[in-house]
Amino acid sequence: MDARSYIEDNRDGFIAALGEWLAIPSVSADPAHHGDVRRSADWLADHLRATGFPTVEVWETAGMPTVFAEWPAADPTAPTVVVYGHHDVQPVVPVQEWDTDPFTPTVRGDQLHGRGASDDKGQVLFHTLGLRANLAVSGAQAPPVTIKLLVEGEEESGSPHFADLLIRHRDRLACDVVVISDTTMWDSDTPSMCVGMRGLTDCQIDVYGPESDLHSGSFGGAVPNPARALAELLAGLHDEQGRVAVQGFYDEVVEISAAERGLLAELPFDEAAWLRTANSPVAAGEAGYSTLERVWVRPTAEVNGMWSGHTGAGSKTIVPRSAHAKLSFRLVPDQDPLRIQERVRAHLLAALPEGLRAEIDFTGPGVRPCASDLESTAVQAAREAMAKAFGTRIRYTREGGSGPEADIADILDAPLVFVAVGLNSDRIHAPNEKVEIPLLLKGAESVAYLWDAYATALRD
Amino acid sequence: MDARSYIEDNRDGFIAALGEWLAIPSVSADPAHHGDVRRSADWLADHLRATGFPTVEVWETAGMPTVFAEWPAADPTAPTVVVYGHHDVQPVVPVQEWDTDPFTPTVRGDQLHGRGASDDKGQVLFHTLGLRANLAVSGAQAPPVTIKLLVEGEEESGSPHFADLLIRHRDRLACDVVVISDTTMWDSDTPSMCVGMRGLTDCQIDVYGPESDLHSGSFGGAVPNPARALAELLAGLHDEQGRVAVQGFYDEVVEISAAERGLLAELPFDEAAWLRTANSPVAAGEAGYSTLERVWVRPTAEVNGMWSGHTGAGSKTIVPRSAHAKLSFRLVPDQDPLRIQERVRAHLLAALPEGLRAEIDFTGPGVRPCASDLESTAVQAAREAMAKAFGTRIRYTREGGSGPEADIADILDAPLVFVAVGLNSDRIHAPNEKVEIPLLLKGAESVAYLWDAYATALRD
Repeated sequence: MDARSYIEDNRDGFIAALGEWLAIPSVSADPAHHGDVRRSADWLADHLRATGFPTVEVWETAGMPTVFAEWPAADPTAPTVVVYGHHDVQPVVPVQEWDTDPFTPTVRGDQLHGRGASDDKGQVLFHTLGLRANLAVSGAQAPPVTIKLLVEGEEESGSPHFADLLIRHRDRLACDVVVISDTTMWDSDTPSMCVGMRGLTDCQIDVYGPESDLHSGSFGGAVPNPARALAELLAGLHDEQGRVAVQGFYDEVVEISAAERGLLAELPFDEAAWLRTANSPVAAGEAGYSTLERVWVRPTAEVNGMWSGHTGAGSKTIVPRSAHAKLSFRLVPDQDPLRIQERVRAHLLAALPEGLRAEIDFTGPGVRPCASDLESTAVQAAREAMAKAFGTRIRYTREGGSGPEADIADILDAPLVFVAVGLNSDRIHAPNEKVEIPLLLKGAESVAYLWDAYATALRD
Repeated sequence: MDARSYIEDNRDGFIAALGEWLAIPSVSADPAHHGDVRRSADWLADHLRATGFPTVEVWETAGMPTVFAEWPAADPTAPTVVVYGHHDVQPVVPVQEWDTDPFTPTVRGDQLHGRGASDDKGQVLFHTLGLRANLAVSGAQAPPVTIKLLVEGEEESGSPHFADLLIRHRDRLACDVVVISDTTMWDSDTPSMCVGMRGLTDCQIDVYGPESDLHSGSFGGAVPNPARALAELLAGLHDEQGRVAVQGFYDEVVEISAAERGLLAELPFDEAAWLRTANSPVAAGEAGYSTLERVWVRPTAEVNGMWSGHTGAGSKTIVPRSAHAKLSFRLVPDQDPLRIQERVRAHLLAALPEGLRAEIDFTGPGVRPCASDLESTAVQAAREAMAKAFGTRIRYTREGGSGPEADIADILDAPLVFVAVGLNSDRIHAPNEKVEIPLLLKGAESVAYLWDAYATALRD
């Protein structure tokens, strides 16, 4: 029995279990779904017990729960690995744009469609299959390294309580390495390992003007219009070079070195193909940087949503009483989310026209950017395990988005290694999210090998 | 019996009838209410028959119907008056901000609350009371002038089919003067007559980018963001002086003369009180013009609504696939709505970033601005009739908004006279619309006198 055969033989049961989990709409951003997020945690806890984890706990936070599971190695001196993923999912609006119901998982050929299939339930669940494969091959009752699964419930809401949780449980989470399974590979033919991620902070801005909507004939042109003012604030977030115009925004940014630029430029990047994946006819962004640099090593400001006044059928000639937008800022080393929040707030308030009032609410403390050490044993061993599973060289990439990886590395004082099999074409955060089933199985196979490799390599 | 006593004696029945009509949610902008607009037309037709009009017809259009009623003078050589108003109303969202249900008319002291109470059902209906008062005083079986009531059903949607209707029925609508009852007075203590109105054209702009929402971590900063682009387009509608930045926008604007500026400046304008009515802490607009000039004699561009991407609870870190806004432009003599549409479209499309697509749909042909001749007999007689009813001098004002008045004057080749009793504080187009009942009664009294005056004055 080898790991690959075990995994192929157990493919159907694995997909069936993942389908059960995907049917739970664990949308952490929507309070109406908080009960579902709890059901999702309970489902996972039951599944991990059934997998054989001797310790499975649902850890409460001030928000949604994290699932923790531990399976000690037989050898008490074996290294310890924390595996991180999340069980909450993105909202599904506009739901009418899904070809199949987002919470009715559907297999189509080699793909499994449903919200969370790629981000991140599929990638969490391949660890159970990979661990069972490792045990099946070794015939042992316990893994070669101590495995601690840590599956968060608020990653899609910016992990507002996760750092507190890590601090609270720091001792139980002690480990030699943190394996993160929540990223994407270069493409299905070019497996790769992420070695850096952008951070994030996001906010809602509410601009208030007259206390009620006004007739634009009677008042238009003579009072401040909150929608127009908000449009001007949003337009003022960038300069003509596509740089973020917030004062001090770039103060702590580590500029990419010539060596790094060269490494990125060597990647087989096909911009036309990337644009097809993005469904965008053109690339556009900060002047002086390539597309990969723009999404991996440069910070951004994005408008994620906005609304004001009349948005229904027909005309309504009003000066709206208020206008609202949701903004997010991607951050790179060494930007600090809290400092960026202060600077964004100051920038927006300074630009607000007289007679209007604004409220700016940031979602929690934000997410810090992070990076892996390419030369470390932990990264090299993982790259070799993946190479064995995929049968090809594993390349290095970075990732434009992130979860709470920087916090995990800092609080647990352990290096980060990214082992994950998502694709940019998986439509995560968009309608019709899917995952490639063969890649999930390669993920399982990779960790089946990796735990054996770490049992030796991390003792050095 | 004098007109005032007759009107006071019949106040309760008048308010009861108006309440019945206001209960019909005749929102022409919302297709879901088109059946109600038809019910509103039928209610009015029945009411006019009951009032005594020998001819009452519901005139179909390609949209919502107009009600026409004619009561010929006994003397076939008497002058003919067309009275214009509308029976459709504005939408009522946000409905939760109404203190009482918008379609459950409620008397509170001297006020009647409900959508359409002031704009325009209350002002249409005072004509039936005024005409009955005129007949009660004269004891005649027919009015001293031929009255042709013309009550439109699509004014709040920009009157897209009304010009066609006027052309089709031009012969039956032949008249010596058009009396418009759809404007406001200076305030309840300072009755006034409108002598000019701004025109209007409005559109929806839809900006499309990627074919689906994108994860802002994976794609943000490297593809065009439609929400950001729309914000920039909206911000670019004005220059730093608050002037509309669309090329050619002011080409046909008749600049206000020094004499007109003086007349406006003499009005007892209390900017602080006006701002309280507007519920806005400051006035703001085009540099170099007073507040009254900004709302009466200067054209504008306003954002009436906008929406894009995630607008629900929590965060969703996406690049949205599309962004949308509703814009309206107030026009002054001699701007032409169709020319302005061309220029706005050209301006917006020229400013659109590469890689995005925009659709710009204007609502019909727009509304042309209009003005009355202050020196005409028709205006002078109406001013005297109002002075008799209100017991005070009637001032001249302009109005910032308009219906299809310019079309009526042009197509029927008759002068416009504005006899109306709305107030800027009536919250038309906003939650909690109301009308002052005593002013509706003064409106009825004014026209009771006016028909006698016109019987003589318009023969000259």
